[in-house]
Amino acid sequence: MAYQRILEEIHHEVSPLFGQGQVADYIEPLKQVDPQKFGMAIETLDGECYQLGDAEERFSIQSVSKVFNLALALAVSRVGNDLWKRVDMEPSGNPFNSLVQLEYENGIPRNPFINAGALLVIDVLLDHLTDINADMLAFVRELRCSDIHYDKTVANSEKLTGYNNAALVNFMKGQGNIFHGVDQVLDAYFHQCSIAMTCAGLARSMLFLANGGVVPGSGKRILTVSQTKQINAIMLTCGFYDESGKFAYRVGMPGKSGVGGGIVAVIPGKLSIAVWSPELNKNGNSVLGIKALELFTTKTGLSIF
Amino acid sequence: MAYQRILEEIHHEVSPLFGQGQVADYIEPLKQVDPQKFGMAIETLDGECYQLGDAEERFSIQSVSKVFNLALALAVSRVGNDLWKRVDMEPSGNPFNSLVQLEYENGIPRNPFINAGALLVIDVLLDHLTDINADMLAFVRELRCSDIHYDKTVANSEKLTGYNNAALVNFMKGQGNIFHGVDQVLDAYFHQCSIAMTCAGLARSMLFLANGGVVPGSGKRILTVSQTKQINAIMLTCGFYDESGKFAYRVGMPGKSGVGGGIVAVIPGKLSIAVWSPELNKNGNSVLGIKALELFTTKTGLSIF
Amino acid sequence: MAYQRILEEIHHEVSPLFGQGQVADYIEPLKQVDPQKFGMAIETLDGECYQLGDAEERFSIQSVSKVFNLALALAVSRVGNDLWKRVDMEPSGNPFNSLVQLEYENGIPRNPFINAGALLVIDVLLDHLTDINADMLAFVRELRCSDIHYDKTVANSEKLTGYNNAALVNFMKGQGNIFHGVDQVLDAYFHQCSIAMTCAGLARSMLFLANGGVVPGSGKRILTVSQTKQINAIMLTCGFYDESGKFAYRVGMPGKSGVGGGIVAVIPGKLSIAVWSPELNKNGNSVLGIKALELFTTKTGLSIF
Amino acid sequence: MAYQRILEEIHHEVSPLFGQGQVADYIEPLKQVDPQKFGMAIETLDGECYQLGDAEERFSIQSVSKVFNLALALAVSRVGNDLWKRVDMEPSGNPFNSLVQLEYENGIPRNPFINAGALLVIDVLLDHLTDINADMLAFVRELRCSDIHYDKTVANSEKLTGYNNAALVNFMKGQGNIFHGVDQVLDAYFHQCSIAMTCAGLARSMLFLANGGVVPGSGKRILTVSQTKQINAIMLTCGFYDESGKFAYRVGMPGKSGVGGGIVAVIPGKLSIAVWSPELNKNGNSVLGIKALELFTTKTGLSIF
Repeated sequence: MAYQRILEEIHHEVSPLFGQGQVADYIEPLKQVDPQKFGMAIETLDGECYQLGDAEERFSIQSVSKVFNLALALAVSRVGNDLWKRVDMEPSGNPFNSLVQLEYENGIPRNPFINAGALLVIDVLLDHLTDINADMLAFVRELRCSDIHYDKTVANSEKLTGYNNAALVNFMKGQGNIFHGVDQVLDAYFHQCSIAMTCAGLARSMLFLANGGVVPGSGKRILTVSQTKQINAIMLTCGFYDESGKFAYRVGMPGKSGVGGGIVAVIPGKLSIAVWSPELNKNGNSVLGIKALELFTTKTGLSIF
Repeated sequence: MAYQRILEEIHHEVSPLFGQGQVADYIEPLKQVDPQKFGMAIETLDGECYQLGDAEERFSIQSVSKVFNLALALAVSRVGNDLWKRVDMEPSGNPFNSLVQLEYENGIPRNPFINAGALLVIDVLLDHLTDINADMLAFVRELRCSDIHYDKTVANSEKLTGYNNAALVNFMKGQGNIFHGVDQVLDAYFHQCSIAMTCAGLARSMLFLANGGVVPGSGKRILTVSQTKQINAIMLTCGFYDESGKFAYRVGMPGKSGVGGGIVAVIPGKLSIAVWSPELNKNGNSVLGIKALELFTTKTGLSIF
Repeated sequence: MAYQRILEEIHHEVSPLFGQGQVADYIEPLKQVDPQKFGMAIETLDGECYQLGDAEERFSIQSVSKVFNLALALAVSRVGNDLWKRVDMEPSGNPFNSLVQLEYENGIPRNPFINAGALLVIDVLLDHLTDINADMLAFVRELRCSDIHYDKTVANSEKLTGYNNAALVNFMKGQGNIFHGVDQVLDAYFHQCSIAMTCAGLARSMLFLANGGVVPGSGKRILTVSQTKQINAIMLTCGFYDESGKFAYRVGMPGKSGVGGGIVAVIPGKLSIAVWSPELNKNGNSVLGIKALELFTTKTGLSIF
Repeated sequence: MAYQRILEEIHHEVSPLFGQGQVADYIEPLKQVDPQKFGMAIETLDGECYQLGDAEERFSIQSVSKVFNLALALAVSRVGNDLWKRVDMEPSGNPFNSLVQLEYENGIPRNPFINAGALLVIDVLLDHLTDINADMLAFVRELRCSDIHYDKTVANSEKLTGYNNAALVNFMKGQGNIFHGVDQVLDAYFHQCSIAMTCAGLARSMLFLANGGVVPGSGKRILTVSQTKQINAIMLTCGFYDESGKFAYRVGMPGKSGVGGGIVAVIPGKLSIAVWSPELNKNGNSVLGIKALELFTTKTGLSIF
């Protein structure tokens, strides 16, 4: 399969969609991103890499970092498995965002990929890590991606406008489901949101999820086969907010999106793929990114279904 | 009408209810209150005072302070009337407390007597007052009640466990409906909750609401006739959380309760009455307090209906 | 107090509001009503009557009939008081209408004045009455109003479009809270909605609610003093859908509105008043009707607060 | 892979779970089913069949029929694709069942596998089919399963207690999203729920979903490759009510369950598998059935992830 040519076809076919979405504008640093940016990268288990466009340019991965967050939590908390007592793994199905659901369900977030869930996972990580911000970078570097850093401007902006996230942590703490300090949890969260990576780096670092939990190249086992399948399952059912069902229907790959316009997805046993295009649809997912991945599965015939 | 004798009859008739409710236990200082405490006080526009039991003992008035909060806001914000753009005046009808409703209604609290609404009113007050905590005490003293102070132990306990209130303020700030600092708003709120007064003081200080907004004795006008009726209307429709309808049905007086076990109510043109009994029903209202007021209206035939 | 002159002043002052609302359009017969209609009628306990405009013209009273429905249920079910086990008396506080609340609260309607609650009250009435439609007319005639009939065109139109009400009855029956046949309950409900009366008739028939439950003139006791106060309390807290709080705040009278543009209200111990003006605000209450009643209480100084 | 032996191991390992669930009891015919029943059947694309226990005994497939319902709708409505304008494909995420969500989303069901969604799909089918009940049986027979019939006792019981489903259809019709008669839609729905099949028949008839839409053996194409993937995606994200996420996490196969205790699932490109065990967990899914499928994927290493 000539992936490079497929990437070029996809680029050609999605280009007419520029202008149909809106760049995230709740913080200044995201607002200023050039909406015309477009990058794609593929990494295969055969060791091949394919890139297109702005694949080597760093962008704010935002909620894509929730995959690293969950993976790290599963990796470090192997002994006690209390994570799943404190966060559920069901799709949220709630277009109104999550305070409503949190309240109805007594402070148990629906899954680790909604904000409340990611904040809860951070609280679990704080039990195990002494320097969560440093450990997170170290973890991603172990996934063979060194081109990663926290964008302090983004982290600060998130903090200044992060009242909704503060509401979530405070509410969960009021319900007894957050054990560490509110500010400590929020600080780590805003740092994760500010992680800057490239499409190439994202595809490379997520490849272990297509490889049963083992980092290709280094051979280092990060997660058990079972844990790896579980993350893929959660990406499929919960990876795209209230558009997860449609992404499964149209694309058929486990994946995760972020409001920076990035999406990463995997075909277990085959490859990982990352796209970046900043314009978002009303659900907060990249317009061109989703279309690009749909075209990818159509053209290659790859799909988990 | 021999009010003193009626008070004694009421005391006799409600006594069998001791033990049917639970003292508030979310903070230590409330938990330690003797559940057997019972006080009543009546102040009439004729200048008469009647008391029974622990009517001169101070207790934590908690949410009863929301009436002072709203009255002060109406008093100081006479010019701009933007209060009602930022908080509604409808019953909340929500047994799940208010984060759900706040989210569905984009950060506009349903009324000034739910927590979110009181926090919002404080934010309005902060526009007008330089020392809100001192000004609040001064305001109540103007209502002819000098036996009032903040109970610092209560205020600190509220603060230590006040995550749900922090969630409310943060959420509203995220929605753009809180203009001052989160901590500043919360501090004033926890102070208000910690106000300690006696039944006698409560009845006296609320008498202006039965008198068209004018403090009997001093003759000082606090609110216009119209504003006074409005507070009474809001007390009637929203004064007892999710039991407001039943209180109107059973008692038929505008009033407000607090989880300290206090209730204050008025018969416009006639009198004000305060009860204190710490045991609460599942809605957070005083078991004996509500029954006492029901008996009061039955025995006297007084009712706004 | 020169009520006639006050009515004329009110008429003059509300006239500029014509055109600000929308006539109900979900069924043809309501859609065709002349939006310029305006009538008012007052009946006092002194035996005086005042009228203005179209006060003698019949219109579709719609949900105002829910007051008769509840009053009749209280009148006939004096023995068993199981009504309040099957319907609550709290404001609904739900702008989304009532299926949501019904489901969260297991088929117990919030109060007798929302659709679900009125349907439930009918189910209770069906236990006691052999011909509910005839008995309802007889009941209102006993209230000294003979100018009343069912408008079959309206009843049929309601039936043809009444799927939401059918959903409510079916849901409550599924929850075990409706004992009679779905169609039987709906038929009586659609009949009640179709009752046509005049402002004069409405004011006259509701006067017993200002008179402690006794029909002035005939002296017949319909309800106990206590039951009468309870209906007034429920009208005050629940009579205007999600605008009940604002009506209490602005007007300060127990009352009930209907989407036909009619409103009836009472000042206990004094009078009853009815207004009709078909243009509705977004909450389904008459724009001119509410303003007229607000002016009435302002001009007369009458208010329960 | 020695499937027969694996089936036997599974049977052995799940047996201790008997007694942990509850047989469905909302209708008499389900209540009377022997809770000890247990059957499994596998059909592979290689043409092999494996069975265990009560695999040849017919049971009420209940909501498993929603897969046939959706497949038939996609098969007959190839031209106009308005189905997805009237029903969404997102997980419902709503533990309260679906009236709440239906109301918030204006009568658009979340997906075709919740009751509201299946009723909507039937309404679409009624546009295309002249005898929906007969056509449905014919459709399943085309899938090489002849051992199928409607259990009239079940259908009648469903009808007698089906008030919640009647509420759903009425509500959607009130919202303009149901075009056919309420009773007509319900009748077809209750018939589908009453379909009786065997594990062997279920596995055989669903095998086309593992085969890109083509019935193995006959070679008849029922759906396009793309439509087939889409049904699998919807089964994965929505097939197990509010346990869909956990099923994906634990089992990793697209599937669908019913309150009769049946579950069917597929591994695309490989096989289909059916289990029957009547005891249900609190989410309405078969306790032993889910465990059996989890063991199956663990023992075989098969999973879409």
